Amino acid sequence: MRPIALLTDFGHADHYVGVLHAVLEREAPGVPRIDLGHGVEPGDIWGACFQLRCAWPHLPTECVVMAVIDPGVGTERRAVAVTVGTRSLVVPDNGLASAVSGATTVRVLDWRSMELEEPSRTFHARDLFAPAAARLARGVDGLDIGNEIEVASLQPCPLPEPVPTSSGLEGVIMHVDHFGNLVTNVRGSETEPSVTATWRAGRTSRRVGTYGEAKPEEVVLLEGSAGFLELAVNCGSAADTTGLQRGDRVVFSDGEG
Amino acid sequence: MRPIALLTDFGHADHYVGVLHAVLEREAPGVPRIDLGHGVEPGDIWGACFQLRCAWPHLPTECVVMAVIDPGVGTERRAVAVTVGTRSLVVPDNGLASAVSGATTVRVLDWRSMELEEPSRTFHARDLFAPAAARLARGVDGLDIGNEIEVASLQPCPLPEPVPTSSGLEGVIMHVDHFGNLVTNVRGSETEPSVTATWRAGRTSRRVGTYGEAKPEEVVLLEGSAGFLELAVNCGSAADTTGLQRGDRVVFSDGEG
Amino acid sequence: MRPIALLTDFGHADHYVGVLHAVLEREAPGVPRIDLGHGVEPGDIWGACFQLRCAWPHLPTECVVMAVIDPGVGTERRAVAVTVGTRSLVVPDNGLASAVSGATTVRVLDWRSMELEEPSRTFHARDLFAPAAARLARGVDGLDIGNEIEVASLQPCPLPEPVPTSSGLEGVIMHVDHFGNLVTNVRGSETEPSVTATWRAGRTSRRVGTYGEAKPEEVVLLEGSAGFLELAVNCGSAADTTGLQRGDRVVFSDGEG
Repeated sequence: MRPIALLTDFGHADHYVGVLHAVLEREAPGVPRIDLGHGVEPGDIWGACFQLRCAWPHLPTECVVMAVIDPGVGTERRAVAVTVGTRSLVVPDNGLASAVSGATTVRVLDWRSMELEEPSRTFHARDLFAPAAARLARGVDGLDIGNEIEVASLQPCPLPEPVPTSSGLEGVIMHVDHFGNLVTNVRGSETEPSVTATWRAGRTSRRVGTYGEAKPEEVVLLEGSAGFLELAVNCGSAADTTGLQRGDRVVFSDGEG
Repeated sequence: MRPIALLTDFGHADHYVGVLHAVLEREAPGVPRIDLGHGVEPGDIWGACFQLRCAWPHLPTECVVMAVIDPGVGTERRAVAVTVGTRSLVVPDNGLASAVSGATTVRVLDWRSMELEEPSRTFHARDLFAPAAARLARGVDGLDIGNEIEVASLQPCPLPEPVPTSSGLEGVIMHVDHFGNLVTNVRGSETEPSVTATWRAGRTSRRVGTYGEAKPEEVVLLEGSAGFLELAVNCGSAADTTGLQRGDRVVFSDGEG
Repeated sequence: MRPIALLTDFGHADHYVGVLHAVLEREAPGVPRIDLGHGVEPGDIWGACFQLRCAWPHLPTECVVMAVIDPGVGTERRAVAVTVGTRSLVVPDNGLASAVSGATTVRVLDWRSMELEEPSRTFHARDLFAPAAARLARGVDGLDIGNEIEVASLQPCPLPEPVPTSSGLEGVIMHVDHFGNLVTNVRGSETEPSVTATWRAGRTSRRVGTYGEAKPEEVVLLEGSAGFLELAVNCGSAADTTGLQRGDRVVFSDGEG
């Protein structure tokens, strides 16, 4: 049985995530289930895209990923199952599917084809996405999930790309993590080792290899675990130290230039 | 092996939930484990009853549910295993077992019958409920769990029922969820489609089908995922917008009347 | 397959814990995975040691425990796999391994021996510890993990031990839990049943058997679930009531003395 990974904005206060696990276990007994996370802010498609993109390379080869951040639940937005290499992605079509590249086929989830009860209008994660993910995990043929549509018709991913400038790259802070690290959209591989980051007039950070190389309270620049450059404070919070937030601008330039 | 679902008020800061999973895996290796949730407020039996009632219809058919919100741990309150249809419910007898209907047999958990060490006086979830749930998951005969008692002797569920009035139904807010939705104890199926909710003098909400039908910042009424009517704000928090809290009164009346 | 238990300070806001589960499932398909907890404060080795020590006796016999609180990630600190009885412990060598007693062998994790890609410098949990834990769970011989070193060379555990005084024992508060209970480092078995705790000039608590024996708002002393004496308020928070914090001093003396 293919494992199923879950990403939602449902949080941990309610029974919502538990019900998803219950439906998956009911529909695919014994399926390995992985919580990618449920701490995305309510309705935050950007944040979910970022987490999905970072986690993607590390998932089991044949994983079924169910990512449900769905402010449009019950409206006309489509629910889709996307094949990406050997993995499947089951999502509302609101940009999530475009967070990773390489989609080869897309099907619109159809509760009638899956012989499901008519879904509620407020909890498609339970009534539509989880049953679809369970069928994919069990190896049910894609045809029974719903009709195929064009890959090119998927909604685009909202994540901004870095912008080249005369002196380097202009990026933005994409994610503030649990440790207060400020993760940008610029990859370490896109820059020189001598790159510096200017994150406010006159405030610049030097690049280091890991957190432990920073001086106390120094805001340093390093390549984080997903390959993106991030601002960090060793044993502290760069978010607290700098006051920077998601969406704020960071300018990267070659320190030797 | 029957899957085991867990509901507690233990939160996520400590090792308490992890220890329950460890005991279940130790006592029933390979058993599928489902976290229904651990975000119930400390000692909040009402909240746990509500979450249990909402999740119940979606659980695997033969699920063993262990729900431990147990302010009376170590006192004279009984610990019980309740058979409800094809499922089992392992709980302190403080109202939790009565959150769902259809109990057919009740046994008092007996550590001597189960050949357990004498439980601590402060963590029966680990020392009594989890070993009992593991035995039920493995298919151990109920006789070995403890002696049978009358179903009618179970403590009643504290959840209030709606009260009929001359103009409709008077309900209360039962749960404020992660999204700020205000879930009442009135079922959509108990009301007309034209029902309106008055939640404060002069403040009334119209019924819609799903969140996306609301105007910006409008407090609307809709049937939520468990069948209960709820007040909601699309892409916002009805709790923040209205200031309403659990226990507050909402009056439902037929808008066409 | 041996089950794997996880303890980290990664929290629940990001995808970090989810990626660990993904790697474990990828490297050891179907392995039972247990979240011991991810709520340890960032970089808090003391707190992690305490939670590990409390959970340890309840883990499955052959459990592989991966505990990663790793402020020194990417620096010269060693990453080790420790055999403790029939269990294995995979940790950075920063005191975590010494939180439990009985280590018999220690190996330094070596990514080359395990034929892994060179780890990132910021996420060894994903790139080094999880692959090592998966190998141990699958039963790979320890030799392939890395070279053996002396048990005595492990960093010491930072948890303080109680200090005997002329009138009894002086302890400290080791942990403030989700319920506001103040757990000390003094075991119930080290004291007389008539012991009292003085936690501030003139403020003394009597010993009871369980929470329900306390009077309303009374701060009582009882033996908690890990065997340590704790200050507690029934249906309330001893932390809020007393203002005490981790590291604060509590003096235990025989009440009959």
